[in-house]
Amino acid sequence: MIAEPKKPPALKRPIITLTTDFGNQDYYVGAMKGAILEINPNVVLVDISHQVPAHDLLGGAFTIRACYYDFPLHTIHLVVVDPGVGSKRRPILVKTENYYFVGPDNGVFSFIYECENIVNVWHLEASHYFRPAVSLTFHGRDIFAPVAGHLSKIMSGDEFGTPIEDFARIPIPKPQVQGRQMKGFVLLADRFGNLITNIELAELTAFMQAQGLKRFQLSIGGKAVGPIARTYAEGQGETFAVPGSSGYLEVAANQKSAERILNAQRGQECLLQFE
Amino acid sequence: MIAEPKKPPALKRPIITLTTDFGNQDYYVGAMKGAILEINPNVVLVDISHQVPAHDLLGGAFTIRACYYDFPLHTIHLVVVDPGVGSKRRPILVKTENYYFVGPDNGVFSFIYECENIVNVWHLEASHYFRPAVSLTFHGRDIFAPVAGHLSKIMSGDEFGTPIEDFARIPIPKPQVQGRQMKGFVLLADRFGNLITNIELAELTAFMQAQGLKRFQLSIGGKAVGPIARTYAEGQGETFAVPGSSGYLEVAANQKSAERILNAQRGQECLLQFE
Amino acid sequence: MIAEPKKPPALKRPIITLTTDFGNQDYYVGAMKGAILEINPNVVLVDISHQVPAHDLLGGAFTIRACYYDFPLHTIHLVVVDPGVGSKRRPILVKTENYYFVGPDNGVFSFIYECENIVNVWHLEASHYFRPAVSLTFHGRDIFAPVAGHLSKIMSGDEFGTPIEDFARIPIPKPQVQGRQMKGFVLLADRFGNLITNIELAELTAFMQAQGLKRFQLSIGGKAVGPIARTYAEGQGETFAVPGSSGYLEVAANQKSAERILNAQRGQECLLQFE
Repeated sequence: MIAEPKKPPALKRPIITLTTDFGNQDYYVGAMKGAILEINPNVVLVDISHQVPAHDLLGGAFTIRACYYDFPLHTIHLVVVDPGVGSKRRPILVKTENYYFVGPDNGVFSFIYECENIVNVWHLEASHYFRPAVSLTFHGRDIFAPVAGHLSKIMSGDEFGTPIEDFARIPIPKPQVQGRQMKGFVLLADRFGNLITNIELAELTAFMQAQGLKRFQLSIGGKAVGPIARTYAEGQGETFAVPGSSGYLEVAANQKSAERILNAQRGQECLLQFE
Repeated sequence: MIAEPKKPPALKRPIITLTTDFGNQDYYVGAMKGAILEINPNVVLVDISHQVPAHDLLGGAFTIRACYYDFPLHTIHLVVVDPGVGSKRRPILVKTENYYFVGPDNGVFSFIYECENIVNVWHLEASHYFRPAVSLTFHGRDIFAPVAGHLSKIMSGDEFGTPIEDFARIPIPKPQVQGRQMKGFVLLADRFGNLITNIELAELTAFMQAQGLKRFQLSIGGKAVGPIARTYAEGQGETFAVPGSSGYLEVAANQKSAERILNAQRGQECLLQFE
Repeated sequence: MIAEPKKPPALKRPIITLTTDFGNQDYYVGAMKGAILEINPNVVLVDISHQVPAHDLLGGAFTIRACYYDFPLHTIHLVVVDPGVGSKRRPILVKTENYYFVGPDNGVFSFIYECENIVNVWHLEASHYFRPAVSLTFHGRDIFAPVAGHLSKIMSGDEFGTPIEDFARIPIPKPQVQGRQMKGFVLLADRFGNLITNIELAELTAFMQAQGLKRFQLSIGGKAVGPIARTYAEGQGETFAVPGSSGYLEVAANQKSAERILNAQRGQECLLQFE
């Protein structure tokens, strides 16, 4: 589902968000912020998360997908989950109808390619926008942060490299429908132990309306889950489905961890049986 | 003890602080910041903590109580620890002599009601200040953040809803005095394993002066603790009392964890026997 | 190796970075930020890390060393790892050719004294720049943050106290050369389990060139490590050396934790045998 175009904000200062798997303990995030501020001290820096599990492309891809659209038009989203740093994977800049995205071409923008109208994707080649000496192990500081810093001043992608069309996507299987069943999977568990699935609420609702379906029974990894509740507090049964705030179907427990109760993990089957 | 009124600062940009139990891993904090910046890109956002234990109202209440007053006059403190999200608990805006507070009416501002002169508390009803589609599971993004964003532009509460008087408080028992004993309890342990009690230093000092008391012996959960020290470095014994920086009596160990040594937990009795 | 002097930036707003061992759960970081903003609401606050292990001077010293230079000229770096808070250890302000540093005089700036040309070090004595009532357990909020706030307005050190020359350093042993061997040690492990050693790449390269050496075999705590690779992705063997982005030799594993594989810890011997 493609997101709506946004209206222009009255941005006095450009916004750069940061999403990485660098953690909050080491100097890596600080180094990236310094590298940005050195180029444009007038930006607003916003941390989204640095606790994406190490090397977890799907986790990083979901995190930015779940909140990129909450930011003002023309926000620059910097996403660095980059297990292949220093290898042949390309550094890229993505311009969509509403936003800019900067990061490695390893599929971490896979959801963005589905949700936004893509204007252009550039292979970052103009090395005069990089740090003078680029390390082979920390492109976050040496390539992506400086490019985001310069971009926040220029607000145009053409100077940064060559347009490409073969940018990488990670395979994110869509829910499968078989008769009166829909099969999805667990994308990830959040801090509260809520399980976020890959079943989009908008698509689920459209499918059920088209088929005249009213209810479903849900199971995670073969374990039955209670009926869909509007809120965490109204849930019946130890675990139950809720319409998640990220636009996906979730499984939750009231003030408990559904992840722990169901012993669930990413990739586990999420089965809807329609009545 | 009511805090002193503050002097006006030369605020070029309004400040919004964030205190939540959303953790630093998921997209929730990013989504809230985006929602604020979308409405007022000119605010200064300050994270206080997103590591309040999940659903821990008392923990959230103490965290904002311990540092709200360090901020400039008219700072907006956004506090979202909200286990009842989507239920009938009301969203509220609190205006005190010095600050604004935005969050759920579940008692998370209980300490604030004791420490600040309250000007007004509004039930947030003016839904045109909310996100157009309000989810039932993420009012942090859909109600509280947008209201804080609009408030930072308007700086007046009347447009947001109806004044109420029956706002919720969580019961926070006061220390009990029985003869030559004072009984309090452990509020929480900090990162260093220091145990913060519910015994306010100002009240303890006033009580001891009034009664002509000079010293006390302290125990936590029945285990004896060394005499009060001025600093962590001067403490005698494995664990000892210190006057905590938040204004409460603390129990610490020099470069060790009093929590671990005493195997202490929230609610455990903190007993002072005066000599 | 002394860092190059920097060029002046077009700083509209002064930058203050924060590096502490306060963690992200408690109110301590929020209190420091409030104390700074109360004095100068016009600063840009940048978190480097608050997850320095509790009381770990060497960890804090390395963290600020690894990224201080990425920030614009005249950035104020606030570093509070302060196990001796309230004792006789002095609060200090360090002015170098490029930056300001504020924190306790306990050696946390040891690397800075080696990397920067020091202009002056002041013992912070002018208590009218402190919080009116200074606690003995939280100088981060009561001394260091207010001084950083005032410094961001004054940008001169002379008003804050008396110059000193006997500032503290922690002993950080240099790698030892014996014949065809170089012995260093593990400084710390990062989030990915990469082991950062105390062997500076610039010095290692200079030594090898001077001696006409081409290769070395590396072991950590007696366990052999694969040959040096340019990137994480190119590494051969379960663990291997890489030129780290902080300027030190590192030991890594491709998408795994070298720390766990080698069961390594700080201080363990890192031995290079040159061929």
